[in-house]
Amino acid sequence: MTMKALVYHGPEKISLDDVPVPKIIEPDDAIVKVTTSTICGTDIHIWHGGMPEVEGPRILGHEFCGEVVEVGPAVRNVKVGDQCAVSCVTQCGECFYCVRGIYSHCTTGSWIFGYMIDGCQAEYVRVPHANLGCFPVPDGMTDDDVLLVGDILSTGYFGAENAEIEPGDTVAVMGSGPVGMCAMMTARLWGPARIIAVDMNQARLDFAVKQGIADMALNPADGNVPDKIRDLTGGRGADRTIEAVGARGTYELALDAVRAGGNVSMIGVFEKPQELKMNELWIKNIKIGMGLVNANRIPELINLIAAGKLDTKCLYTHRKPLNDLLEGYDVFGNKKDNVLKWIVTPYER
Amino acid sequence: MTMKALVYHGPEKISLDDVPVPKIIEPDDAIVKVTTSTICGTDIHIWHGGMPEVEGPRILGHEFCGEVVEVGPAVRNVKVGDQCAVSCVTQCGECFYCVRGIYSHCTTGSWIFGYMIDGCQAEYVRVPHANLGCFPVPDGMTDDDVLLVGDILSTGYFGAENAEIEPGDTVAVMGSGPVGMCAMMTARLWGPARIIAVDMNQARLDFAVKQGIADMALNPADGNVPDKIRDLTGGRGADRTIEAVGARGTYELALDAVRAGGNVSMIGVFEKPQELKMNELWIKNIKIGMGLVNANRIPELINLIAAGKLDTKCLYTHRKPLNDLLEGYDVFGNKKDNVLKWIVTPYER
Amino acid sequence: MTMKALVYHGPEKISLDDVPVPKIIEPDDAIVKVTTSTICGTDIHIWHGGMPEVEGPRILGHEFCGEVVEVGPAVRNVKVGDQCAVSCVTQCGECFYCVRGIYSHCTTGSWIFGYMIDGCQAEYVRVPHANLGCFPVPDGMTDDDVLLVGDILSTGYFGAENAEIEPGDTVAVMGSGPVGMCAMMTARLWGPARIIAVDMNQARLDFAVKQGIADMALNPADGNVPDKIRDLTGGRGADRTIEAVGARGTYELALDAVRAGGNVSMIGVFEKPQELKMNELWIKNIKIGMGLVNANRIPELINLIAAGKLDTKCLYTHRKPLNDLLEGYDVFGNKKDNVLKWIVTPYER
Amino acid sequence: MTMKALVYHGPEKISLDDVPVPKIIEPDDAIVKVTTSTICGTDIHIWHGGMPEVEGPRILGHEFCGEVVEVGPAVRNVKVGDQCAVSCVTQCGECFYCVRGIYSHCTTGSWIFGYMIDGCQAEYVRVPHANLGCFPVPDGMTDDDVLLVGDILSTGYFGAENAEIEPGDTVAVMGSGPVGMCAMMTARLWGPARIIAVDMNQARLDFAVKQGIADMALNPADGNVPDKIRDLTGGRGADRTIEAVGARGTYELALDAVRAGGNVSMIGVFEKPQELKMNELWIKNIKIGMGLVNANRIPELINLIAAGKLDTKCLYTHRKPLNDLLEGYDVFGNKKDNVLKWIVTPYER
Repeated sequence: MTMKALVYHGPEKISLDDVPVPKIIEPDDAIVKVTTSTICGTDIHIWHGGMPEVEGPRILGHEFCGEVVEVGPAVRNVKVGDQCAVSCVTQCGECFYCVRGIYSHCTTGSWIFGYMIDGCQAEYVRVPHANLGCFPVPDGMTDDDVLLVGDILSTGYFGAENAEIEPGDTVAVMGSGPVGMCAMMTARLWGPARIIAVDMNQARLDFAVKQGIADMALNPADGNVPDKIRDLTGGRGADRTIEAVGARGTYELALDAVRAGGNVSMIGVFEKPQELKMNELWIKNIKIGMGLVNANRIPELINLIAAGKLDTKCLYTHRKPLNDLLEGYDVFGNKKDNVLKWIVTPYER
Repeated sequence: MTMKALVYHGPEKISLDDVPVPKIIEPDDAIVKVTTSTICGTDIHIWHGGMPEVEGPRILGHEFCGEVVEVGPAVRNVKVGDQCAVSCVTQCGECFYCVRGIYSHCTTGSWIFGYMIDGCQAEYVRVPHANLGCFPVPDGMTDDDVLLVGDILSTGYFGAENAEIEPGDTVAVMGSGPVGMCAMMTARLWGPARIIAVDMNQARLDFAVKQGIADMALNPADGNVPDKIRDLTGGRGADRTIEAVGARGTYELALDAVRAGGNVSMIGVFEKPQELKMNELWIKNIKIGMGLVNANRIPELINLIAAGKLDTKCLYTHRKPLNDLLEGYDVFGNKKDNVLKWIVTPYER
Repeated sequence: MTMKALVYHGPEKISLDDVPVPKIIEPDDAIVKVTTSTICGTDIHIWHGGMPEVEGPRILGHEFCGEVVEVGPAVRNVKVGDQCAVSCVTQCGECFYCVRGIYSHCTTGSWIFGYMIDGCQAEYVRVPHANLGCFPVPDGMTDDDVLLVGDILSTGYFGAENAEIEPGDTVAVMGSGPVGMCAMMTARLWGPARIIAVDMNQARLDFAVKQGIADMALNPADGNVPDKIRDLTGGRGADRTIEAVGARGTYELALDAVRAGGNVSMIGVFEKPQELKMNELWIKNIKIGMGLVNANRIPELINLIAAGKLDTKCLYTHRKPLNDLLEGYDVFGNKKDNVLKWIVTPYER
Repeated sequence: MTMKALVYHGPEKISLDDVPVPKIIEPDDAIVKVTTSTICGTDIHIWHGGMPEVEGPRILGHEFCGEVVEVGPAVRNVKVGDQCAVSCVTQCGECFYCVRGIYSHCTTGSWIFGYMIDGCQAEYVRVPHANLGCFPVPDGMTDDDVLLVGDILSTGYFGAENAEIEPGDTVAVMGSGPVGMCAMMTARLWGPARIIAVDMNQARLDFAVKQGIADMALNPADGNVPDKIRDLTGGRGADRTIEAVGARGTYELALDAVRAGGNVSMIGVFEKPQELKMNELWIKNIKIGMGLVNANRIPELINLIAAGKLDTKCLYTHRKPLNDLLEGYDVFGNKKDNVLKWIVTPYER
């Protein structure tokens, strides 16, 4: 039995192929029929050869919802017929890292979908460790409601959690792309007095403020951002900063704009080493956190969405079936047409 | 020089008297001209003789704003002319308890206003340890904006903080009086999915939901509250419960309605011992916190009010000058006229 | 195939019977050949009918080491031939409670051995959720080294962890039986300045001090213990107290002896409700924790034993084969012969 | 009235001068007669002009004990005649940073002794904010017992605390000088299974292990240290690493040797920026902490010393009166004669 899938064959080589439908391998595997998925920034990295550890042929994609169509004998937490959001980080729940909540380093999991094993830009996908991988969509909710909980909403949450925000804080998020906006939305959960969006793209800043995602916005084109943040905070700087891009400029802003004793949380994917000014920072009493999303609070994010406290649907700018996914890579990968998130619906025959 | 003040002379004996204006005693004292104050539930306790450790004559009151009119030589953080909100808990910042943030047990402070020293239901009040007691009202804000930060908003915050709320939680607050509603407002700062107001007074429940202070309400008159909460939470119970009354009924609800591994936070003032069912609870893995407010986050609460994230003004149901304060004790103390908070404005000559 | 096992048939009725050897039922089960086990206080409770939810016939026992002799297809973390210490708390790693580290309330596990399913006072035992249940004994170590990690050493650790001890603290442990001494040993891991053993049994106090388990001891027979602790701590009381018995006297000591802002950690198993003096405690700012052991740090406890930082062997006062276990119930259950721990070795044919 | 003092007059220019005895300036000042002090690494930095913000003439020194000889009217916590250890970090207890426990950034304090105001290498010194600066030496204890609590023992503690050590952890300390050894001694307070000392100086490593300060030692001259640590920890790396030098080599060891999800705590004083390999680290889920000591746990360190749980006296290799302090700068500054700490006793006339 075959299915359609977006397959990576090597740098700059992707195509929509006919491939075999996946099968159960381990006792705690599930097979999921993909009903909605997205393109993520890391897919674009892989496409361009930025992650040479990925060997083709590999089906890409790791942010999705779908219906469970088959389960192994050790699957307890979901059953055939369940509509689920799926975690992009595969987690066994039992290894050294998982028992510490560091699911991102699960020794038999971690981020593997569309990277080390086949991903979700296909009609079906095998979900290993399904007990901690599949999260039922509650009655009355749709794929669209929960689509991002498995990856970028969790990534934003991870960044906000690592920032150790306290009620009344000023939080500055360096980068207002989809991940940065997810960080802002979830930063709100810790009661900051003020969330500041920072980006060079004024349209994204305007969008973030208009949607109520950020309380205010600063564009580096209009002047020194850390100085402006210090002016707003009695000369101190932001209590917490979040870096959501993975580039030198946002990295430097995050370290400059944070106050003494504050936290810098990095969730951008970096391609290059950066300079850490330890000669100035040794005395600044900051903490710098970084890492791959743990995706450990998906049920709680779903609760919050159900309660109307979080809503990511405003980020869905494009929506087309799997048939048109190569176009999606072009649009999303080249930031055309003000795209924020490209939503993939099932293949239409 | 004399002033008007509400003086407690013993159980059931209060009167509006002419008394001497207070003077600086310690180097870090300030004298504050009271511009707005309130009546608090503990004032009523004292009035009725419920706190026999209070010896008359004693000027009552501990929740207020005012203008600094004189400072001792060791006062650094405020100056004459500053309009301030004042903490009900006096804190030195230096003793065993203060350095741990347990300001409520400051060895030369704690709650003393209108209890161990003269309070704020007067024209002037002496504020000991003014460096950590007086918090300037920011430009553009009024007494009304920040009036409750010194006591019941901080008490609500203390209860919510002790509850150790996590994003996505269900929080039930047992008691929807002014303190319970302050607990709900501040519980919101930790991102719960759902705040449930519980009270026998349906009008207060309706008010809390209508104002958006609570997400939903439960009245014990309508059926078993813990069972209803378990029905809403997959059979588990509320992740956190807050007791905001100090009575047997709300105490038992708080312990019954919390899930295994959850937190019970007590902020009510109890007059009687209670039963703790250790035969059932030893295995329930809950944590029970209790205590007097630390009032340690007043600047952050002011920030949140300034940013529009908190607003307590909907609780101000009555407002009269100091001249009419005996009427206030009757109305507030006997819960007449749907009173929530009775606001005291300056004496009118 | 049959084996010998200590079987509970109802209140006061236990016998050494021939019963079938257990079989794999779930994919993540293991069958373990028991090489060393113990009698625990809860076994005695069950024997006397104190836990009527236990229905006979039931093989008792839940603290043990053994060799894995068979594993289900979903067992990843141990293999046939591994010598293991086993957790008394069965944990799936995936349910609502397990992902929060509250393994004690695992929805398909929790404490079930020798309670809801057959236990370890037998030649073989079925271990459900073996991936998080079996912990290999490192090379060079013996059953005796790690025997208590699965239950009472973890219980002591749980009590110490819940006490939230900070370096330099004074910690008082109410009850110096085996569990109390395990709490003292593990309390040491958080760097207290002083651990105080409290008990009516002077021999146990002397033992605890002589072994270096406690720094000093107080016997209520010699005067008011909380007053003595306040004398030692500038009038404040112990920073943290741990209740390790489950009785009224130790409960009251724990609540009386703790300082304002301190923690009371309860690990005793209580048969009766207790009085909580909320009229006095509402203002004391304490936190009270309680619950069933999570047994979530077994590998770390093994590390500490291997490094010579923990050693429980001094508690092993008696050692006999399974053949003599009825004698063990009499001696341990009736606290004869200064017993601390009764060690069970394999059945001798 | 004049006194002897070690005065910095500019790069490479220090001398023992006659200078005026200091006087009370602020109401919470104390004047302390210095009875014992030390030379610290930062004194050497200043001597060589490495901190050009220091303008001569400036009396150096910030680690000391002494007798209170005069107090201002707002001093509550010490009195004339008290023998005290003094914090190197001056703290008001009231500013934005102090109420958060970030005393190192006190807006009217922080590290100022022998830097921004005159220090302790003199016969008398003015101690600002004495209420949180002077800590009485308990009866029966000597200056030698507590001499380092005010600076390097607190610095070690700060580094260990920031490392967020958990019981059973493996902790590697990069640098085995006096500060590194203080970090090891205090790291022990959080119950690690293994403390690994790392240094190029084999004599210091041998000393640390022989004294029981470290459990084992690794010398980079003998092979790749991070690889050896991974071999000891199942391939993962140290749970926590502490950098205690401020140089490129130890910085890189600390980042390389830590496991995924671990903590890197920096307490070295860096003169140069360093490279942060964000291209590798973005996915490693580590936290990096850094900063100036908060010196917030001096009473607890004194408790621990009194209880025999900490002892720094083995570090005192040299002891001479203030008369010979220029010799001390030469010996300590040039690491002659296996010096660890140079102790300064009072001027002998």
